[in-house]
Amino acid sequence: MQLLKDRIRTDAKIIENRIIKVDNFLNHQLDIALFNEIGKEFKRRFSNKEVTKIITIETSGIAIASIVAQYFNYVPVVFAKKHVGINMNQDVYEAKVYSYTKDQEYTIKISKEFLSPNDKVLIIDDFLASGSALMGLVNLLFQSSAEISGAGIVIEKTFQEGRKRIEEKGIQLESLAIIDSIKDGQVIFK
Amino acid sequence: MQLLKDRIRTDAKIIENRIIKVDNFLNHQLDIALFNEIGKEFKRRFSNKEVTKIITIETSGIAIASIVAQYFNYVPVVFAKKHVGINMNQDVYEAKVYSYTKDQEYTIKISKEFLSPNDKVLIIDDFLASGSALMGLVNLLFQSSAEISGAGIVIEKTFQEGRKRIEEKGIQLESLAIIDSIKDGQVIFK
Repeated sequence: MQLLKDRIRTDAKIIENRIIKVDNFLNHQLDIALFNEIGKEFKRRFSNKEVTKIITIETSGIAIASIVAQYFNYVPVVFAKKHVGINMNQDVYEAKVYSYTKDQEYTIKISKEFLSPNDKVLIIDDFLASGSALMGLVNLLFQSSAEISGAGIVIEKTFQEGRKRIEEKGIQLESLAIIDSIKDGQVIFK
Repeated sequence: MQLLKDRIRTDAKIIENRIIKVDNFLNHQLDIALFNEIGKEFKRRFSNKEVTKIITIETSGIAIASIVAQYFNYVPVVFAKKHVGINMNQDVYEAKVYSYTKDQEYTIKISKEFLSPNDKVLIIDDFLASGSALMGLVNLLFQSSAEISGAGIVIEKTFQEGRKRIEEKGIQLESLAIIDSIKDGQVIFK
């Protein structure tokens, strides 16, 4: 997606030739007009798939998934929770996720009442790197017996192992900007 | 907002005549079509105000704020972070917030680069009860010298003290469903 790649080139901050910081449009300040273009592009890429629900993960995926849902007939969005309040239902699907940016293991949870075997789920998330978060969601969805229609990622870093782990499960994976490497503070797209 | 009140009547779960659980459309599973109606209603109520940015707080406010922004010329959304990754800028505005549902004190943070004295900010959040989260955001915004155009809340519980604390600061506060009390498991709207 050219618009997104251009935005990464102009606005991303590169740290230690390894970390791509996009908190001025994707992770902290959110560019809602761009998210709408992202929604249109995911609809185009998954136009052959039936989608009854969009699943994402707290926190950065929520805004993107919510805008994207508008292009899939306003299906409900459910986000897996990392930080659970005292009012949360105890009857949940759960999986372990390791966060590299927080150097911490989480348990992510979705209430069983919001996933059924009849659901056809599109997974949406902001980043794919090691694939730990995405595999956590896939594990949750396998527990629920929901069908996985695909996984849509905004930015993928191919120099980590995430894609392989998802494709091995037979899941259609679409990333809108695929970063092959970072050299001298410059992003090289695939 | 009648549509919202009807939805609360049919779908909210009432716990101990005190807690209103709306995680089937507002907090965990998200009804994006409803959020669009909420966006239209906030636009109507703040039609006299200039808005250059929408501010909310992690986690439940993010999806609502993102959809609402579409009705305010797609202004950027910035969310205050409770859970900060190792990549976050250290140059932040911060404030303390006490969460009753998690029985825990948080420090919320917004990078200074995303708030300026030229911003005219609409605050959006899902709930107003004690007002702790909202006052935390207001404190952050005072630090930045941004102008506060108003605060839009989806569900307000008047039997806690939040509204008074906000109105004392001279801020226009608009809540789409105001719950006066809960009796015998039934919500009584104001």
